[in-house]
Amino acid sequence: MKAIGVFDSGVGGLTVAKELFNELPYEDIIYFGDTARVPYGIKSRETIIKLSIESILFLLKNDVKLICVACNTASSVALPEIRNHFKIPLVGVINPAVKEAVYATRSKRIGVIGTNGTIRSRTYENEIKGLDPSIKVTSSACPLFVPFAEEGWFKEKAVKEVARAYLKPIKQAGVDTLILGCTHYPLLKQVIKEEMGKGVVLIDSAKQVAMEVRDTLGSFGLLNKAARNCRHMFYVSDNPEWFKALAKSFLGQAISSVRKVDNV
Amino acid sequence: MKAIGVFDSGVGGLTVAKELFNELPYEDIIYFGDTARVPYGIKSRETIIKLSIESILFLLKNDVKLICVACNTASSVALPEIRNHFKIPLVGVINPAVKEAVYATRSKRIGVIGTNGTIRSRTYENEIKGLDPSIKVTSSACPLFVPFAEEGWFKEKAVKEVARAYLKPIKQAGVDTLILGCTHYPLLKQVIKEEMGKGVVLIDSAKQVAMEVRDTLGSFGLLNKAARNCRHMFYVSDNPEWFKALAKSFLGQAISSVRKVDNV
Repeated sequence: MKAIGVFDSGVGGLTVAKELFNELPYEDIIYFGDTARVPYGIKSRETIIKLSIESILFLLKNDVKLICVACNTASSVALPEIRNHFKIPLVGVINPAVKEAVYATRSKRIGVIGTNGTIRSRTYENEIKGLDPSIKVTSSACPLFVPFAEEGWFKEKAVKEVARAYLKPIKQAGVDTLILGCTHYPLLKQVIKEEMGKGVVLIDSAKQVAMEVRDTLGSFGLLNKAARNCRHMFYVSDNPEWFKALAKSFLGQAISSVRKVDNV
Repeated sequence: MKAIGVFDSGVGGLTVAKELFNELPYEDIIYFGDTARVPYGIKSRETIIKLSIESILFLLKNDVKLICVACNTASSVALPEIRNHFKIPLVGVINPAVKEAVYATRSKRIGVIGTNGTIRSRTYENEIKGLDPSIKVTSSACPLFVPFAEEGWFKEKAVKEVARAYLKPIKQAGVDTLILGCTHYPLLKQVIKEEMGKGVVLIDSAKQVAMEVRDTLGSFGLLNKAARNCRHMFYVSDNPEWFKALAKSFLGQAISSVRKVDNV
């Protein structure tokens, strides 16, 4: 029985893994967090592509049947470049969020927030425009959100002030839909929601990604429908203690075993 | 004419380079920022040691005469392990700050702030106790300070709130001297000073480090005393644009040329 592979630059992808666990209870899942090289968001395009390929090759060595790129930076910067190189189905986090946002917007104004790398790539914008060129997209990089989420500062005044500054151009643009374009941001959802106001729908792609993984497996005849106990395995390229300590907030449950792998 | 080598995990070491430029105006200086692997603060001990050795080997290839480890995490975690492996003089940032703090304290209570890696290593504490076992040391990891400094948030309310939370145990301990144990922190000096109050001396080691480099060169007969135009060269392992954009705040002047090196 082949597993589903999931990779992220660190712990953020666990918010996606959480939805995969819910949506696909009979599938084995192997998660790889590239904690030796985290964060991807400040790295150059060529480095993000190189690291993403290395993470995919690690998962392929573990004989997976599908790979979910649960990292917005890798999905937006690397995936468009490398998607066609691999035989294995690759599911990123951009497209599911874009489809949901385009479906949700009434005002045809969508906001996107993410890391510097994600926003600079303009992948969200291009994919939205590809589906509906009449939609106006306003983007804002929010680099302090990741350290706040990792430090467990979810709703303090400091987070609110930072959110106010980052979200100002998005609010001014009058969007009715905001894509949380980073897997860390669901942890700050409450503050972002308060700042944006009730009329704005927040698109947290994790659930849509899990459904896309399920549909893709189905279309390849790879979905496991029979009830069984499944295995969830976690690998990191460095510092399993750090990963374990953060896992609970991101995954919603503690992880008992995290293995460190060398030479990824 | 051999140059002085300086390395840091990223841009923070530029606050040390700034003082080296002032203190040693006739010396060539080669700075290496390991921006492909920044930040070191959340990495494991063995990874920090491995990356520090690789950075030192890169500088040795450039035929330097002394290496300044301008990174608190590398100085506190790696330097005690690797100092004796190398023939070249290695100057870290811990010892100069410790000497200054032990000299400055009247109450025999010193505070230390730094990254998670630096604080966990207890190197500051051990070095202070080595000089004066009667001194009480209180430490606090301040992981959000680095992203704030890099984002240019130096004195906003959000920074003040975060500083208040991080510095609380240090204030409660009644220290009269606080070591800024991270090269990023001088950029937040004003907020830290306000929070600690007038009675507390802040030790920003950059100046002391530059003096130690000068003294070490002198003791090895390597100091260049003759007036000359000197070269300052900057290398990074990734994303020279990001480094250049941040250089001005950290170095106090713009950098015209930053070269990316591969395979460090």
